[in-house]
Amino acid sequence: MTAASAPGKVILFGEHAVVSGFPALGGAIDLRARAKVLDCPGKLLIETEGLFVSGFSLDLLSGQVLCRQASHAARYVSAVLREFDASDLSIRIESSIPPASGLGSSAAITVACLAAVSRHLGHDLPAKEVAALSHRIEKTVQNGLGSPMDTALATFGGYLRVCRQVEPLALPPLQMVVGDTGKPHDTRQQVAGVQALKERYPDLVNPIFQAIGAISSRAAGLIEEQNLSELGALMNANHGLLEALGVGSRELSELVYAARNSGALGAKITGAGGGGCMIALPGPGNGKALIAAMRQARGRAFPAVAGCEGVRMEADT
Amino acid sequence: MTAASAPGKVILFGEHAVVSGFPALGGAIDLRARAKVLDCPGKLLIETEGLFVSGFSLDLLSGQVLCRQASHAARYVSAVLREFDASDLSIRIESSIPPASGLGSSAAITVACLAAVSRHLGHDLPAKEVAALSHRIEKTVQNGLGSPMDTALATFGGYLRVCRQVEPLALPPLQMVVGDTGKPHDTRQQVAGVQALKERYPDLVNPIFQAIGAISSRAAGLIEEQNLSELGALMNANHGLLEALGVGSRELSELVYAARNSGALGAKITGAGGGGCMIALPGPGNGKALIAAMRQARGRAFPAVAGCEGVRMEADT
Repeated sequence: MTAASAPGKVILFGEHAVVSGFPALGGAIDLRARAKVLDCPGKLLIETEGLFVSGFSLDLLSGQVLCRQASHAARYVSAVLREFDASDLSIRIESSIPPASGLGSSAAITVACLAAVSRHLGHDLPAKEVAALSHRIEKTVQNGLGSPMDTALATFGGYLRVCRQVEPLALPPLQMVVGDTGKPHDTRQQVAGVQALKERYPDLVNPIFQAIGAISSRAAGLIEEQNLSELGALMNANHGLLEALGVGSRELSELVYAARNSGALGAKITGAGGGGCMIALPGPGNGKALIAAMRQARGRAFPAVAGCEGVRMEADT
Repeated sequence: MTAASAPGKVILFGEHAVVSGFPALGGAIDLRARAKVLDCPGKLLIETEGLFVSGFSLDLLSGQVLCRQASHAARYVSAVLREFDASDLSIRIESSIPPASGLGSSAAITVACLAAVSRHLGHDLPAKEVAALSHRIEKTVQNGLGSPMDTALATFGGYLRVCRQVEPLALPPLQMVVGDTGKPHDTRQQVAGVQALKERYPDLVNPIFQAIGAISSRAAGLIEEQNLSELGALMNANHGLLEALGVGSRELSELVYAARNSGALGAKITGAGGGGCMIALPGPGNGKALIAAMRQARGRAFPAVAGCEGVRMEADT
């Protein structure tokens, strides 16, 4: 038996602008995907029981697909297995990361699975290779789309600055609240929409990207200094800029204002927008009030710490 | 008896950025303030019955103030009367413009009153002088604050581009829906907040202003061509940029999304924000649906046409 886990992530600042080379800042969060590998002679079994939404078993050989969500996870696992030409294994995936919400669920599953399978097969991949290979696998499964930030954060943990290259940052952890609208979002569609807006109105979108880049550049210093009130103000500004790019939604906006109006220092969309999640920065001692207000605004809300550990091998449990 | 009326206004694009010299675009709307002047020997009487919120009579000589809102209107009327050293008059003000909502209520009252009083006293002020004098009066009453756009639109009507100077634009009328949150807003406070943000984060706010300026520059051409779908997209973008400047609110956002989700081509805050009003651009034939949705979202919603006639003398009615 070999087991590994890897974290989900939030983009703190810089969504969409990063596609055009402006800096973005992301952090690994304390929600994790776990992969457990066992020998299973004559079979290749992928179990995804315990996934956030619902659980079941899927036997690839029998071709049964019982749940779209788990089938989605199984695609990444299958791609990892193909990478190693692996067989005679049982892979069990568990994850507490809401899928398809921009929290890096598929990257965490891919990285955890890759780490567990490679170790189980006796390979000793350096972290850098885990990140690179996982990124390649994600891109293959997602038909060419895949942020290097997701797989890098799932691998290295902590914080990353992305600006063409990916650069780790040593910053203290940050207590946040994540609000999930429960509305599916399509990253590809949102990214394409913003890029189309940029084609059409470069005089509008370029300065918006520039403003987002200015926020991302300031953010790391504020986390370093634990200047949360300024960090919150910049989250609010970044949220407006994402709204300006057309990736807001009524549900996201309701969660953002629910958080702000119950004492959040700042709140913004995280990820591609159009649905999915937002994040809020609680003020001193008001995390629970935020969560209550965000649930009242019909969101799934939970605390999350940004800046957590990356992929790690796990003991059997 | 001498009577005059003047229109309210909406800012279509460019709020806040205009303070730093970027272009803004405003239009006079078909809500009007009316001033009626009668001789009234031995007295100076200001009646504000028929104001949007509530009506009453105020006798300045007796010093009675019956309603804060009407007292607010009376301050502009008094300032006009002082300007002409007028006495022995009765001034009656009626207005269908919601006051303190960013719709130019005080400018319309000032301009209508100035036009009626000056004509009644035998002066024949050219429109340019009416606008300049009204602007000066507004600034005096508002302790130095006052947009030249409001008084210019109340005087000249139509559309105006403001970019340091005020420039009239010949453009076709535009059917809109105005949504009033009913939450008071403080223009001075919102403007000061944005300017403080600019002082603190010039690298963030300057590109935001630049993006807003780019929108304002494109807008007139789109109104000219009646390209409403692009105009709506730019309204949405401008709204996000105002959110980024920190002048959004939950109530404004709810009205904006209520309008967008029921078929508006675009929706945005109008005016300083933080409360007050938003505007929506209806799609073909869906003005009523917008109004219904905005009322459901707890707003006061009404149709308004931008680009209407400026100050005019009225027959007695």
